[in-house]
Amino acid sequence: MSARERIYLFDTTLRDGQQTPAIDFSVDDKITIARMLDEFGIDYVEGGYPGANPTDTAFFSRKRTASASFVAFGMTKRAGVSASNDPGLAALLEADADAICFVAKAWDYHVEVALGCTPEENLDSIRQSVEAAVGAGRESMVDCEHFFDGYKANPAYALACAKTAHEAGARWIVLCDTNGGTQPGEIRAITRAVIEAGVPGDRLGIHAHDDTGQAVANSLAAIEAGVRQVQGTLNGIGERCGNANLVTLIATLGLKSVWSERFATGISADDLVGLTRLSRTFDELLNRAPDAQAPYVGASAFATKAGIHASALIKDPRTYEHVPAESVGNTRRVMVSDQGGKSNFIDELKRRGIAVAKDDPRLDTLIALVKEREAEGYAYEGADASFELLARATLGEVPEFFAVDSFRCVVERRHNARGRLITLSEAVVKVTVDGEQRMSVAEGAGPVNALDLALRKDLGKYQGEIADLELVDYKVRILNGGTEAITRVLIESTDMTGQRWWTVGVSDNIIDASFQALMDSITFKLMKNRGAAGLMAAE
Amino acid sequence: MSARERIYLFDTTLRDGQQTPAIDFSVDDKITIARMLDEFGIDYVEGGYPGANPTDTAFFSRKRTASASFVAFGMTKRAGVSASNDPGLAALLEADADAICFVAKAWDYHVEVALGCTPEENLDSIRQSVEAAVGAGRESMVDCEHFFDGYKANPAYALACAKTAHEAGARWIVLCDTNGGTQPGEIRAITRAVIEAGVPGDRLGIHAHDDTGQAVANSLAAIEAGVRQVQGTLNGIGERCGNANLVTLIATLGLKSVWSERFATGISADDLVGLTRLSRTFDELLNRAPDAQAPYVGASAFATKAGIHASALIKDPRTYEHVPAESVGNTRRVMVSDQGGKSNFIDELKRRGIAVAKDDPRLDTLIALVKEREAEGYAYEGADASFELLARATLGEVPEFFAVDSFRCVVERRHNARGRLITLSEAVVKVTVDGEQRMSVAEGAGPVNALDLALRKDLGKYQGEIADLELVDYKVRILNGGTEAITRVLIESTDMTGQRWWTVGVSDNIIDASFQALMDSITFKLMKNRGAAGLMAAE
Repeated sequence: MSARERIYLFDTTLRDGQQTPAIDFSVDDKITIARMLDEFGIDYVEGGYPGANPTDTAFFSRKRTASASFVAFGMTKRAGVSASNDPGLAALLEADADAICFVAKAWDYHVEVALGCTPEENLDSIRQSVEAAVGAGRESMVDCEHFFDGYKANPAYALACAKTAHEAGARWIVLCDTNGGTQPGEIRAITRAVIEAGVPGDRLGIHAHDDTGQAVANSLAAIEAGVRQVQGTLNGIGERCGNANLVTLIATLGLKSVWSERFATGISADDLVGLTRLSRTFDELLNRAPDAQAPYVGASAFATKAGIHASALIKDPRTYEHVPAESVGNTRRVMVSDQGGKSNFIDELKRRGIAVAKDDPRLDTLIALVKEREAEGYAYEGADASFELLARATLGEVPEFFAVDSFRCVVERRHNARGRLITLSEAVVKVTVDGEQRMSVAEGAGPVNALDLALRKDLGKYQGEIADLELVDYKVRILNGGTEAITRVLIESTDMTGQRWWTVGVSDNIIDASFQALMDSITFKLMKNRGAAGLMAAE
Repeated sequence: MSARERIYLFDTTLRDGQQTPAIDFSVDDKITIARMLDEFGIDYVEGGYPGANPTDTAFFSRKRTASASFVAFGMTKRAGVSASNDPGLAALLEADADAICFVAKAWDYHVEVALGCTPEENLDSIRQSVEAAVGAGRESMVDCEHFFDGYKANPAYALACAKTAHEAGARWIVLCDTNGGTQPGEIRAITRAVIEAGVPGDRLGIHAHDDTGQAVANSLAAIEAGVRQVQGTLNGIGERCGNANLVTLIATLGLKSVWSERFATGISADDLVGLTRLSRTFDELLNRAPDAQAPYVGASAFATKAGIHASALIKDPRTYEHVPAESVGNTRRVMVSDQGGKSNFIDELKRRGIAVAKDDPRLDTLIALVKEREAEGYAYEGADASFELLARATLGEVPEFFAVDSFRCVVERRHNARGRLITLSEAVVKVTVDGEQRMSVAEGAGPVNALDLALRKDLGKYQGEIADLELVDYKVRILNGGTEAITRVLIESTDMTGQRWWTVGVSDNIIDASFQALMDSITFKLMKNRGAAGLMAAE
C-alpha cells in the first residue's frame, strides 16, 4: 500500500465554480464551503480571485482553511510593468493565502489577441510572477489556459509556457482544457508529450471541463498519463457544462481497483463514507434539488426498479453494484413489490425507536399515507421530523399540546409619515392551550417571520419548554410554474441539545405551507422534550 | 469522406430508459418518442419487452418506425424447453418488429445463481434463440449482460457467449457494462480481446452505464477499440445513474474531428442542428426541467458569465467554444454579473439596442448599481428584463406608466361556517394612473397570487395592453438561513408574441420581493409594446 503514488485533490468550487450561471457565493457561503472541503480532507482549496471583486477580497482577508492549502487565483503580471509595480499581482501577494495559482495563456493566438503582447513577453510574465510568489514564500502554481487547444495549434509555444513555469519554480503546472472539447485520447497523448519534454508528471495537474460529458474521463486519462494533481468542483458545478466532478473523481480513485491499487488521495476509505453527505449538503447550501442520478451519491445511484435485476440484487447486492452503497454513505433502494417497500419502512421506523409488526394494518395505512402525501409534493426524505410525527400519529399517538384556532397575516406597503415607502408584516395568532384561548401578535421581517414569532410568543404552560427552540434554516421550493404554484417549505430547527430536525409543509399558499412546517417543528420539540420522539442517534 | 466507417446508433430510451426511477411511459408516450427518434435518423429504436407487460405488448402490436429498425427486447429461451415451446420467445416472435435483441448472461456466476442452469445450457439457449429469430426473418442481436465483469471473472466463458451468438448468426453482439463500474482502459482492452478472439468489430456493440460518470467515454473507448454499434438513451436516462447519453454521443461523433474524420453516423451535419430541440422536447414530454449544464444542448452549454473570458468570446467565439453553438441548434449567451467588465456591459447593452459610449459616466453608474444590487442578492443574469429596465432607467428614461401608492395582503386561516379550517388570501392595491387613483381587490391561491391578480386588475388606460400578459414561472430562493432570510424572487412572463422575459425582486419580505418582480414585468411589457424595450432577437 505504501508504494501507491499520491494524487493531490484541488478544489476550485469557489473560483471556477463561481462561473456557473445563477451561482453567486457570498462571503459567508464561501466560508462554509471552504470549511466543508477542509474538513473533508481536500488538499487545495482555491478560494477566488482577490482584488477582482469585493467578495473575494474580503474572503482573502484571512486564511480560511486549517489543513488544506488555501489558494488565491489571479493573472500573471501584465506585460510592460515590472512584477513589483503590478497592482493585480500586489493584491494577490497581499491575500492571506498559502498558495497562489496564476492563470497564464498557453495558446499563442490568445496571447496576441486577448493579451495584446508578444509570446516572449507572456513567458516573461509567467517567469516573473512565479518568482515573485515564490520569493514571497508562497507555493506557486500556473494554470496553463487553453493548453490542449494551444498545443494542437503550436506545440512548441504551449510547451515553452509549461517549461517556463516549471523552471521558475512553480510547484504545479496545470494543463487546462479551457474550452472543454478535448477527447481523452488527445489528453493522454499531449500530457505524455509534456512529460517527455521535461516537466515531470509529479509537477503536473489537470483541469477538465464537461463540454463533451467527459471531464471525469479526461481527468483520469491525464492521471494515467502521469499528472498527479487533479482539479474539480463539488458536484461538477462550473462554467457552461461544468468542471470535472470532484465527488465522482474522489469515489472512483478511492474505490475502483484499477486506480486505488496504484494511487492514494488524502481521503481514506473511512472518510469516503461522508461523500454523499458532502455532496448533498452542498446542494442544500445552493438550495437546489440534488441530482438523483449523480454517480455514487445520487438518490438513485443504488436504486433498482422492479424488473429483471431486482430479485437477484436482493439475493446478493455485490453482483449488481459496482461498489457497495455504504462505501460512500449512500443507501441501496429496491423499488420492488409492496413487500420490499414494507421492510424498508420497518427498518426506517426501527431506527427511530418505533417497533411495528409486519402484518400490522396501521403500517399499510402509513405507507399509503406517505405515498399519497409525496404525490402531493411532500418530501419526507428531507423532513425526518415530519415523517416521524406522521408515523407516530398513525401507529400510535401524538398528543395535541395546543390547537391553533386561527391566524391572520397582514403585509402592508405604504408611505410612512416621512413619505418613505415601507412594508410592514404583522401576524395575529389564536391558540388554545388547556382549554384556554390565548391571542398573540408580532411584527416580523416578512409574513412568515411574523407568524413564527406570534406562534411562539405564548404557548401557556409550554412556553418555557420552547424557549431554546430556534429556526436555523428555511427553504422554499416551487413545485410547478406560475404564482398559483404548489409551494413546499422545509424548516430546520435546533435547540440547546444541538440536535437538528427538519419539518415540511406543502400548500398552494406559501404562508399555509410555512405554518404546517412551523407547527410540526414545535410539536416535535415538545415530543422530544418528553423523550417521545427524536430518539435516533444524532447524525 | 466516403472512406469513413459507419457507426450505428441504437436507442434504448423506451426499454432501458424505462428503468429510470419515476419514469413510466404510456403507449402514447412510446409512440411519440419512437417517432421522434425515427425522424431524427436513429438506426435502431428498441421499443420494450413485448410479453412482459401490457404496455409493451400493445406497443408492439404494430411496427412503430418508418426508417429505423424497430427492435423487440427479451430473454433467450429458458433451459429445459425447446425454442418452439418457450412462451417468452413466442411472444417476441409475435411482436411486429424488424429485429430482436436477446439479453443473455455472459458471467458464469450469474448463469448459475440467477438462471439456475449450467454454463453449457446457457450457450445452447443463446444459439437456439438466435437461430429461431433468424429463421423467422428477423435481424437478431444479443446483449451480453455483465460482459466486462464476467470477462474479468472468467474470460473464456464470456468469450464463449459472444462467439456462440456470432456463430449462430447474430448481426450484433453487444458488450454490456451492466453494473456501470468498468473504466475506459478496461473497456478498451477487453473489447480488443474479443475482436482478437474472432468476433469482428463490425459485429460488436457497446452498452454503457454512467455509474462512474464515464458512460460516454466508455462508449467512445469501445468504438476506438473497434465496435461499430453504440447504445444509449435520450438525455442519458436509465437505471441508477443512467445509460450513455445518446445526445452527447451523436454530437461528439459528428462534430469532434478525431471521431468525425474516421466515422460517420446516420445523422448528417444538417440533422445535427435539430439536436437541442430533440433533447428539450424529450424533457418536455417527461415534464421536467432540462439540465442547463447538459453537454451541447443545455441552456448554459454555450453561456459565459462575464469575467476573464467574456470579452475575448465576443471578439471571436470560435476561440472559446469547442464547437459552434449553432451546429447543434443551441444559442450563445454572455451574461452580465458581478464579475463583469465594462466591455461586457457595452456589448450586452448593444445586443439590446442600447448604444452607450465607453466614457459615458452613466455607464459607470450603471455598473456600480448592478454590482451593488447583486451584492444585495439580485441576480441580473437570470433576469434579463429587470436588467434592461435598470439600464434604460440609468442611461436614459423609463416612463412611470403608473405608481403603486400602497398595497395590503391578508392571509387568514380560520374555521369556516361548516367548521372546516380554511386559508384565504386577499390583496388590495391602490395605483395612480394619469393622476387618478384606482383601487382593486382580489383573492388568490396565496398572497403573491392575490397581489398579482389585484395589481393587473385595473391599470386604467393600460389595462387593454396587458390583457395578454401571462406569468409562466415563479421561483423563490432563500439567500440565507432562518425565517428572517433575504428572499430572491424570479418571475418569467410571456405574452401573445411568444417572447419570454424574466424579472427579479429581492427583499427580506417575500411579498415585497414578489411585488418588485411583478412591477418590473408589467413595466417591461408596456415598454415592449411601445418598441422601447425587448428589441433583442427572440432566442
